[in-house]
Amino acid sequence: MKAISIGLLGLGTVGTGVVQIINNHQDKLMHQVGCPVKIKKILVKNIEKDRDIDIEKSMLTLSPEDIIEDPEIDVVIEVMGGVEITREYLLKAIRNKKHVVTANKDLMALHGSELLSEATSNGCDLFYEASVAGGIPILRGLVDGLASDRITKMMGIVNGTTNFILTKMSKFGSPYEEVLREAQQLGYAESDPTADVGGLDAARKMTILATLGFSMNIDLSDVSTKGITEITEEDLDYSKRLGYTMKLIGIASRTGEKVEVSVQPTLLPEAHPLAGVNDEYNAVYVYGEAVGETMFYGPGAGSLPTATSVVSDLVAIMKNMRLGVNGRSAASPQYEKNIKQSDEIYSKYFLRLHVKDEIGVFASITTLFAEHNVSFEKILQLPIKDKGSAEIVLVTHRASLQDFEEILQQLKDNALVYDIKSTYRVEGDEA
Amino acid sequence: MKAISIGLLGLGTVGTGVVQIINNHQDKLMHQVGCPVKIKKILVKNIEKDRDIDIEKSMLTLSPEDIIEDPEIDVVIEVMGGVEITREYLLKAIRNKKHVVTANKDLMALHGSELLSEATSNGCDLFYEASVAGGIPILRGLVDGLASDRITKMMGIVNGTTNFILTKMSKFGSPYEEVLREAQQLGYAESDPTADVGGLDAARKMTILATLGFSMNIDLSDVSTKGITEITEEDLDYSKRLGYTMKLIGIASRTGEKVEVSVQPTLLPEAHPLAGVNDEYNAVYVYGEAVGETMFYGPGAGSLPTATSVVSDLVAIMKNMRLGVNGRSAASPQYEKNIKQSDEIYSKYFLRLHVKDEIGVFASITTLFAEHNVSFEKILQLPIKDKGSAEIVLVTHRASLQDFEEILQQLKDNALVYDIKSTYRVEGDEA
Repeated sequence: MKAISIGLLGLGTVGTGVVQIINNHQDKLMHQVGCPVKIKKILVKNIEKDRDIDIEKSMLTLSPEDIIEDPEIDVVIEVMGGVEITREYLLKAIRNKKHVVTANKDLMALHGSELLSEATSNGCDLFYEASVAGGIPILRGLVDGLASDRITKMMGIVNGTTNFILTKMSKFGSPYEEVLREAQQLGYAESDPTADVGGLDAARKMTILATLGFSMNIDLSDVSTKGITEITEEDLDYSKRLGYTMKLIGIASRTGEKVEVSVQPTLLPEAHPLAGVNDEYNAVYVYGEAVGETMFYGPGAGSLPTATSVVSDLVAIMKNMRLGVNGRSAASPQYEKNIKQSDEIYSKYFLRLHVKDEIGVFASITTLFAEHNVSFEKILQLPIKDKGSAEIVLVTHRASLQDFEEILQQLKDNALVYDIKSTYRVEGDEA
Repeated sequence: MKAISIGLLGLGTVGTGVVQIINNHQDKLMHQVGCPVKIKKILVKNIEKDRDIDIEKSMLTLSPEDIIEDPEIDVVIEVMGGVEITREYLLKAIRNKKHVVTANKDLMALHGSELLSEATSNGCDLFYEASVAGGIPILRGLVDGLASDRITKMMGIVNGTTNFILTKMSKFGSPYEEVLREAQQLGYAESDPTADVGGLDAARKMTILATLGFSMNIDLSDVSTKGITEITEEDLDYSKRLGYTMKLIGIASRTGEKVEVSVQPTLLPEAHPLAGVNDEYNAVYVYGEAVGETMFYGPGAGSLPTATSVVSDLVAIMKNMRLGVNGRSAASPQYEKNIKQSDEIYSKYFLRLHVKDEIGVFASITTLFAEHNVSFEKILQLPIKDKGSAEIVLVTHRASLQDFEEILQQLKDNALVYDIKSTYRVEGDEA
């Protein structure tokens, strides 16, 4: 029986895991697919480099054409990363009728809809489970498992680096910079951590999740994004006192036909399923009209977990090849993009202020909120060391983002308010 | 375009949810499948009964033949429950080339392999996502999402009734009987709760999970089962003091080619992902060699959550119909059944004893454990009210079930030991 032939673009952490899984699980793959699977060529940058796995030098190539132009190769697995050049390789591979598996969130967030549509017109499969939340089969869960439901909200801890940092900061009361250095030493954060700590990595994943979950072409530029770099030990301390856990949360929510997609540090009630997701783990909480609350939890990165998702996609492609039904699974988006304005986005907010410590200040602040019809759920007032000033921590009831931003602007202009120390979204009290 | 025609067996809680979802989500279904979906006939026990949904009387029938013999019906959805008569209906439906969706765990645990093999030989699909953990797409997660991995352990909170009872007992320190009555009043427990509290319901679901996850035909009789009826407030109190949470856990684990499947009250470290799954929620924790830890969390029952899984299966069938590839998805088991003996099952154990309060008793007990090469991880000794007796709580290091049972027998025969109050498995400290 003819083996299915694979070309691998890239042999880094994930690529190495893919080779290991395909080699170690030949029996299971054979049982599921009914024919052998063989890696034919691997694109690398340096053929002579020492590697963790045993691999014949003749399988390695420096030339992408050896893979994307080889008519014997059925499936291209892309684990090299990068965006523009990678997009070109994959478009060529698809036009050469090769099915594609990619783990590349940057690419899918920016060019996913182009690549998917090209795949469909060429009768090819393009799967990308590993691009969101590594080893967690969340995309399949959304597309197949919740196929009949209407998803109204997704909240994701989709970046392991920031979750590791926030977990350590909360647990040990350590400052951000110190924990970041520890994360870098342990390999949980890169030497340039900007994309992780700034929220961009999470935003890319939320773009992919929202596009799929809401059946609507969401662009990365639609995702309002804030990272974790400004979170202080004081913020974490107050959060805890008020019964909340701080997480970097990607939110995609839908009301009627309009959606909001954002990434920001968010306070969750301690009993919320996402609040217990610690260290480098990821989880995606999904609220569907019929199913109610579900959550998918697991490793968000790592060689073998991510490679598991890649090879699961490969199995799906090989099953489709056996059945002769490739290229039909990517449904085009059902809805036109329709993004909520700031007066349509509702949430609770946490707000920490330094104010003048004198009679009438609190009344002046509460009046300002009342004028915008925003009331309070929780209030904490504490004296601080600076003479003449006081610290106020507020949690509002649900308010529109527009109202909240107007209140912030007026607080900034208020002479009694010395400083707006921090503001966070509060989620998870209701669906 | 010709509509796909559905026959529904049963119109109880889940059946009503299925009708609601199919009616309310016609647009999404149409978008995914490319043709309309129509329920043609519904088998009920009483046509005149008042129902929560608006449904034409002409759609109802008392005769199963109106569905299973109707050549126009493409898919039979079975939500009537029961085993023997239901098995006959579904075998007939399959022989009449109808695809089947069932939510029936009792049926699938007892006759799953027969029905699946009959479906394959007739070119029909048979899907049963809703039979385990209601709204959670766990079966799809195992089959597709973790397709390339080797699953070595599954631990499930797969019975909502017992999880509700244990959560309330732990939270409020209330006795079992009282919480059971409350659960019955709230509709979380049936008037005859035996199958739930005795562990049988969970055992059925573990049979289905283990068969699928290990690709091995596991029988219900292979599942060693113990329920929650003997759990006392004291047990819960001691568990907490030692840092554990008590849950009814279904365990399916594999070492080499041998497997163990069981259901029993189990202590988990408080930080374990399953320990935070409360109230009527379900979750399945899956450990795969490559992926590591993952968990699927959600509602285990309820009309709409369960119906969501049923309709997702229906969507999968309809997609297969469109592609002309039905009846090919159920891979026959890859391995021969191979069940572990008690000397091959390893676990930690919690043990609570009442012993004579005199010098040498503790030494006598520890010697007994040492003779079986079992050491202790945690020890708690407390005086109790009865004069002359003491209470000892022990947590062992990992020991074989055989050794532990021998120790229990010898403790029973020991005159210094008044009573073995309780024993529980302890899991989750390692994979």
